[in-house]
Amino acid sequence: MAGGRVCLSLNHMSTGGVSRMVNKLRFAQVGLGPMGVRLCKLALEKEGIEIVGATERANLGKDVGEVIGLGKKLGVTLTDDLNAALAAEPDVVLHSTLSSLELAKEQLATIIKAKVDIVSTCEEISYPWQTQPEIAKELDTLAQENNVTVLGTGVNPGFCMDTFPIVMTGVCQKVEKIRVARVQDATCRRLPFQEKIGAGCTPEEFEERKASGKLRHVGLRESSDMIAGAMGWKINDYRETIAPIIAKKEISNEYLTVKPGQAVGVEQIAISMMNGKEIIRMEFQAYLGAPESYDTVYIMGVPNMEVTVKGGIQGDIATASMAVNAMPRVINATPGLLTMKDIAPVHPYAGDWSKLI
Amino acid sequence: MAGGRVCLSLNHMSTGGVSRMVNKLRFAQVGLGPMGVRLCKLALEKEGIEIVGATERANLGKDVGEVIGLGKKLGVTLTDDLNAALAAEPDVVLHSTLSSLELAKEQLATIIKAKVDIVSTCEEISYPWQTQPEIAKELDTLAQENNVTVLGTGVNPGFCMDTFPIVMTGVCQKVEKIRVARVQDATCRRLPFQEKIGAGCTPEEFEERKASGKLRHVGLRESSDMIAGAMGWKINDYRETIAPIIAKKEISNEYLTVKPGQAVGVEQIAISMMNGKEIIRMEFQAYLGAPESYDTVYIMGVPNMEVTVKGGIQGDIATASMAVNAMPRVINATPGLLTMKDIAPVHPYAGDWSKLI
Repeated sequence: MAGGRVCLSLNHMSTGGVSRMVNKLRFAQVGLGPMGVRLCKLALEKEGIEIVGATERANLGKDVGEVIGLGKKLGVTLTDDLNAALAAEPDVVLHSTLSSLELAKEQLATIIKAKVDIVSTCEEISYPWQTQPEIAKELDTLAQENNVTVLGTGVNPGFCMDTFPIVMTGVCQKVEKIRVARVQDATCRRLPFQEKIGAGCTPEEFEERKASGKLRHVGLRESSDMIAGAMGWKINDYRETIAPIIAKKEISNEYLTVKPGQAVGVEQIAISMMNGKEIIRMEFQAYLGAPESYDTVYIMGVPNMEVTVKGGIQGDIATASMAVNAMPRVINATPGLLTMKDIAPVHPYAGDWSKLI
Repeated sequence: MAGGRVCLSLNHMSTGGVSRMVNKLRFAQVGLGPMGVRLCKLALEKEGIEIVGATERANLGKDVGEVIGLGKKLGVTLTDDLNAALAAEPDVVLHSTLSSLELAKEQLATIIKAKVDIVSTCEEISYPWQTQPEIAKELDTLAQENNVTVLGTGVNPGFCMDTFPIVMTGVCQKVEKIRVARVQDATCRRLPFQEKIGAGCTPEEFEERKASGKLRHVGLRESSDMIAGAMGWKINDYRETIAPIIAKKEISNEYLTVKPGQAVGVEQIAISMMNGKEIIRMEFQAYLGAPESYDTVYIMGVPNMEVTVKGGIQGDIATASMAVNAMPRVINATPGLLTMKDIAPVHPYAGDWSKLI
């Protein structure tokens, strides 16, 4: 019975001595770009959830319901003033503005100081303890002082290359190495996604885009660090490579025609070493014409395991789902900067969400 | 910020103001049958874990190290007096005696009153809130009063047909139905397992064994209830069937020869209905000559998902792993009777386990 207590059952919370009169789970949406719109719409589909504030740089003064295409007003006006959006005292913020923690730090600090819990899709906050320990410590301390919880989540980082493999190791006696492969056929994805992965680029253009940082999927390091943190591994050496996957024959879809020798997409590989031994390997591939999409976790240990999500986990749907589904967990969690390995399973709920907090 | 707080990061615990001087994680083994021996041996392989007490009805007065085949003494003598085994004040008990919660209740209450956390492989305590609500409430209250945590876990119930599907729903916007299939080729399993599944029985013998309760896998109801609890579903009707899988041609292995018309194993199906609609379906098959073993979760929702563990999750290894791996989570958890859906991911750890508590 030593140490802090980790987890309180949601059973307990709904029956325990909760004094607050809960009407609805109240959230504010910080960031209404394409992902923010998804988060917001999904949250508003749930019973017992209401929006009380929203920020974005565009559409200022307009009603959120109209901006996200609900065809009706919600009584919440878009602002670029974060404190104004927090004035209605939401239970939680859905934060979806930036991938960079350095850039998002001030926004997060402002929300924490307003004593509001945060679910963020900022990739770099999913596990910043190794990559940006000072900011992590600063936000963790600030969150504890203000009695709020901050969680970074999404599909990747947040689930398919970190939480999912960690959960699967539960049935292993020991683990020697973890390999995760996320392979996506980009044929049916939106044109911006196809451009993001370099489809149609010559090898030279691909290298230029890579150099400008536009091709990089953010989060492999954070996912690797989360796995290592759970397993008790120390990563001594980490390497990440980004390379084009080159078309051997012409391939075309409704948006593009890729000629032989041009890129059909990208392969990003992250290798984590401990004491000269490869312990984590992440393979992220997104390209036109992949024979199939899938997510596979390979665990080398006792026993070995191979677990596959057939057809893969859909990126945009999954990120929105994970962030919205995480809201009750985060509202009820202990204060501090937590990561997905620290909280109980996140899942959707068919009933009234206000009963979960 | 309303309600109780759910989860404290293990990061926090290892750095936070823990006042106790931790030398090792100290456990007592209650029950040293075949599964208890596995639990005990696995726990003792870990760095930073020691055994301080053990009970069983056999081998009384012998040293645990010798009884479990370590070939050396551990200084812990087997007793049939539970309080004697708890006298050394373990941090946690690994409880592995019975499948029936009704029968295990008094043991559990005794351990709780001694203020010791419990990880139990008792199938019926994995999610007793619907099946045995009075005992669940009684143990939950007792655990809270004594500031201890009780968790039932294992492979099934505990992981493959409950926690695993619940975790996978995290990336879903909504879920309409969950189907879980656990198929095991029994050819390489021990003779007692082959007998347990009715291999070699005539259909009449199979029915006799079924009537005596010897063929039933315990836990499908608990797993179904855990999923329903997470999803916010109310099960109005639950049905479980057990039937032989009949050999079409002769099949033999090192233990048995099964003739056509005899049983090669068992199929147990559990169907949960809500408002006239099937919402959870569990298919458990164990038989000689299954083309392959696998665990597959099918989620019908947005999006649909199909997730397969190739070769299936090994039963005995997985149960021991899950129970041992759960010890730090349970030691650090909030008091009460918790279930796997309430605690953060359980996983092995390569370092010193005393640092986790």
